[in-house]
Amino acid sequence: MAKQKTAIVPTREDNYPEWYQQVVRAADLAENSDVRGCMVIKPWGYALWENMQAVLDAEFKKTGHKNAYFPLFIPKSFLEKEAEHVEGFAKECAVVTHHRLEDDGKGGLKPAGELEEPLVVRPTSETIIGAAFARWVESYRDLPLLINQWANVVRWELRTRLFLRTAEFLWQEGHTAHATADEAKEETALIHDVYADFAEDVMAMPVIKGEKTAGERFPGAVQTFTIESMMQDRKALQAGTSHFLGQNFAKAQDITYLGDAGKLEHCWTTSWGVSTRLVGGLIMTHADDDGLVVPPRLAPAHVVILPITFKADDPDAVLAYCKQLAEDLRGQTFAGRPIEAELDTRDMRGGDKTWQWVKKGVPIRLEVGQRDMAEDSVFMARRDLSPKEKQGVKRELFIANVAGTLQAIQDGLFEKAKAHRAEHTRVVNAKDKFYKFFTAKNAEQPEIHGGFALAHWNGDEKIADQVQKDLGVTVRCIPLDGELERCGFGDAAGEGKCIFTGEPSKTRVVWAKSY
Amino acid sequence: MAKQKTAIVPTREDNYPEWYQQVVRAADLAENSDVRGCMVIKPWGYALWENMQAVLDAEFKKTGHKNAYFPLFIPKSFLEKEAEHVEGFAKECAVVTHHRLEDDGKGGLKPAGELEEPLVVRPTSETIIGAAFARWVESYRDLPLLINQWANVVRWELRTRLFLRTAEFLWQEGHTAHATADEAKEETALIHDVYADFAEDVMAMPVIKGEKTAGERFPGAVQTFTIESMMQDRKALQAGTSHFLGQNFAKAQDITYLGDAGKLEHCWTTSWGVSTRLVGGLIMTHADDDGLVVPPRLAPAHVVILPITFKADDPDAVLAYCKQLAEDLRGQTFAGRPIEAELDTRDMRGGDKTWQWVKKGVPIRLEVGQRDMAEDSVFMARRDLSPKEKQGVKRELFIANVAGTLQAIQDGLFEKAKAHRAEHTRVVNAKDKFYKFFTAKNAEQPEIHGGFALAHWNGDEKIADQVQKDLGVTVRCIPLDGELERCGFGDAAGEGKCIFTGEPSKTRVVWAKSY
Repeated sequence: MAKQKTAIVPTREDNYPEWYQQVVRAADLAENSDVRGCMVIKPWGYALWENMQAVLDAEFKKTGHKNAYFPLFIPKSFLEKEAEHVEGFAKECAVVTHHRLEDDGKGGLKPAGELEEPLVVRPTSETIIGAAFARWVESYRDLPLLINQWANVVRWELRTRLFLRTAEFLWQEGHTAHATADEAKEETALIHDVYADFAEDVMAMPVIKGEKTAGERFPGAVQTFTIESMMQDRKALQAGTSHFLGQNFAKAQDITYLGDAGKLEHCWTTSWGVSTRLVGGLIMTHADDDGLVVPPRLAPAHVVILPITFKADDPDAVLAYCKQLAEDLRGQTFAGRPIEAELDTRDMRGGDKTWQWVKKGVPIRLEVGQRDMAEDSVFMARRDLSPKEKQGVKRELFIANVAGTLQAIQDGLFEKAKAHRAEHTRVVNAKDKFYKFFTAKNAEQPEIHGGFALAHWNGDEKIADQVQKDLGVTVRCIPLDGELERCGFGDAAGEGKCIFTGEPSKTRVVWAKSY
Repeated sequence: MAKQKTAIVPTREDNYPEWYQQVVRAADLAENSDVRGCMVIKPWGYALWENMQAVLDAEFKKTGHKNAYFPLFIPKSFLEKEAEHVEGFAKECAVVTHHRLEDDGKGGLKPAGELEEPLVVRPTSETIIGAAFARWVESYRDLPLLINQWANVVRWELRTRLFLRTAEFLWQEGHTAHATADEAKEETALIHDVYADFAEDVMAMPVIKGEKTAGERFPGAVQTFTIESMMQDRKALQAGTSHFLGQNFAKAQDITYLGDAGKLEHCWTTSWGVSTRLVGGLIMTHADDDGLVVPPRLAPAHVVILPITFKADDPDAVLAYCKQLAEDLRGQTFAGRPIEAELDTRDMRGGDKTWQWVKKGVPIRLEVGQRDMAEDSVFMARRDLSPKEKQGVKRELFIANVAGTLQAIQDGLFEKAKAHRAEHTRVVNAKDKFYKFFTAKNAEQPEIHGGFALAHWNGDEKIADQVQKDLGVTVRCIPLDGELERCGFGDAAGEGKCIFTGEPSKTRVVWAKSY
């Protein structure tokens, strides 16, 4: 059978990493800049991020958080206060040492005005926000303090990939302070849920909610909770984390409050974040060999209308019909947002134009020519179906059903991603089978060619280190109580024995290669 | 007469700069951080900025601009490409020279991993965005290219003041490329109008639209257009600028397009921006000796409801009445936004609570006790009136009229600011009167104690330099055609003679001290 042509070359099967880069390029989402590791987020990619921000920001506000903004720069001495924290970030941070450029005598410029204390461009803001919290919190009446910041951060990564790992990225970072450990833990769990619901309901990206092992925790945290999602190459993506920081940062930074007994106590703090990495997750969850597929909840345009006027008897009438159609669609809403209908009247070849929108992943494409107008209908293609599957629909019917169609696409994408995860997740009960699961290269048996392994483990970090060395596989998370059942892996739930030592284990954990 | 007590000490009259700091503190808008010159924007201040962003962002999108995001860092060599530009920014920029911290052998950390080329933290992004435009633009079909970015920027200012001048600030920067000079000029003018309308209609801050003189232009621009507003101390605040960059940056960065005649041409570019400085302008336009006064269009809360339960027979009933009131208010809209009603049930002294909200500048304050509930009414205070002026209003009537009341407050603030500007703007026709206007210290004659002087000038920069040296006064702008009339200074319009030389002059220009 002849190989089917695809808009993206290579295909996922042929070369997954290169396919990813090509989807980013074809959908015009982002590009590498002239600054090592820093990306330019192009309008279509940025619009995805803006839509993510809008939904998350509303959730944060609904749950009582307020936005604020803290300095980009962190004095070196601040970072040094929490030992594990600085250990985690010192190796990859941008350091500002001077505050001007001056003539170097050779026609160029050199750094001048050396700072007394170097400043680090924030890799995360626990320390600088903690210093503010120490000023703001006086008594128990000031608690809980629930703050979020939308910001750019910099981690000097050597090997970068657009959206997934870049030296500079955009994110939100929540920081909260509480009077008791329980309240801080509740906050951590609340946000963990916000992230999971966002991933599944809005991004149509199924996740497993769990706790990180000690080896994978945020530097300085007592507990780190994560949502882990399976990408199409079966690797895991850590899509959001929520940290219970205990009193570690509060003690390092003197965040104290006067309790009702009149005693000075240290606060209990949390931090949590998601980043532009989610755009990478979106791509790797839904894109196919024809380009991006955007879940309707996040689509910068829900519907694109392509007037076909070149062979029309009356091009102006077709255009007017399309304009009215766009107007009527904008009067409809989907998931609380007005329908975004884009009318593309650019003067270019129809085929090229169609494929541009396919590659950008717009959920619904309408092609409208003279005949469609005459029949008071539109020609509709859904991005989640084959590009060849188009159908004529009566205009009024299409408009009346558009929100339902979008929801069907949204639901379908989620179900498809869940099926993919189910297909490549295995309950593994023996070490040899575990190693085989992650190493078998047999093309006849793609079902055992890696993915998520659900296996018992005694919690020994040395064993985890050995597995990582051998296979490049890590424990992605220890699933929360009931989470395996919620995700459809009920048969994996319950106690058992460590597959490496035979020791008792309370729950299977999720093992995978990861981004 | 005994001096009236005020919530802010000192008052504007007693010490204006200190009054400003105290308003920022009392309204809990921002504070200095531990990083020299960098501020922490606190939730109430950030909410003002978010509301500004929402309105401006919608305007930019409505006029065809798309948001994108470009790197925080600019290679030193990029900045060097445009001579005037680097001259303008090299003296005050944060320079990144290293990419990690390592053990200094003394228990601390030192910068390590020196970069081959130093990176500058963006003071503005013409050069890094220009490099992207050079990649993106190929033919005339790609034009106009209309991009906006919301971002943080850093200019290493030595003397800083919260919101007005800080080392790091938040802003939007628009960058556009066009095929012709005329189109670029139209864009510059369009945005100039967007800014002016925003300032007047949304911020209730009257502005004069004009062009900057050569000495006050953006480094590298051909023309800079500005909106200038008079603060309560009669100094001018430059509140937004829109630059026609000609082909300066396009030539420095090779931003070219293939014209329809098949010839490679340089683009014509623009850039434009407003920043968190606007929050400073808002404060200095409307705040009074009792604290901030927020124009309703930008208010994070339009109405605050203070239940007075401590002397109520049935505190729960009063609270339920207030909750229902808040719900009903949230069902109303003002200027396209749902009414934000804040119910303050904190356990603290009523007087303290009331004054907190006065100082924060919430447009409408409702106090509701047992008797008000019994009478199905509310006790209302408007922030634009004296704190003593409160009035009982029937609940239904208040709700029905709330949008109208807010609009009346909005309009009143604008009129008051216009009247202030009118009072302190003078047509000046002679040099000695000009000098006297800016130097007279006679308390009996406050009307000649500085402000805006509308005076003819021959355009000679040497004269302007001398005036700046003598008086600290500069030309704020050359008003656009018809602008003096629009601003109510019709008698100042028309040609005349330079007050310094007697030479002919086409228009009076605006002179003032400035921030």
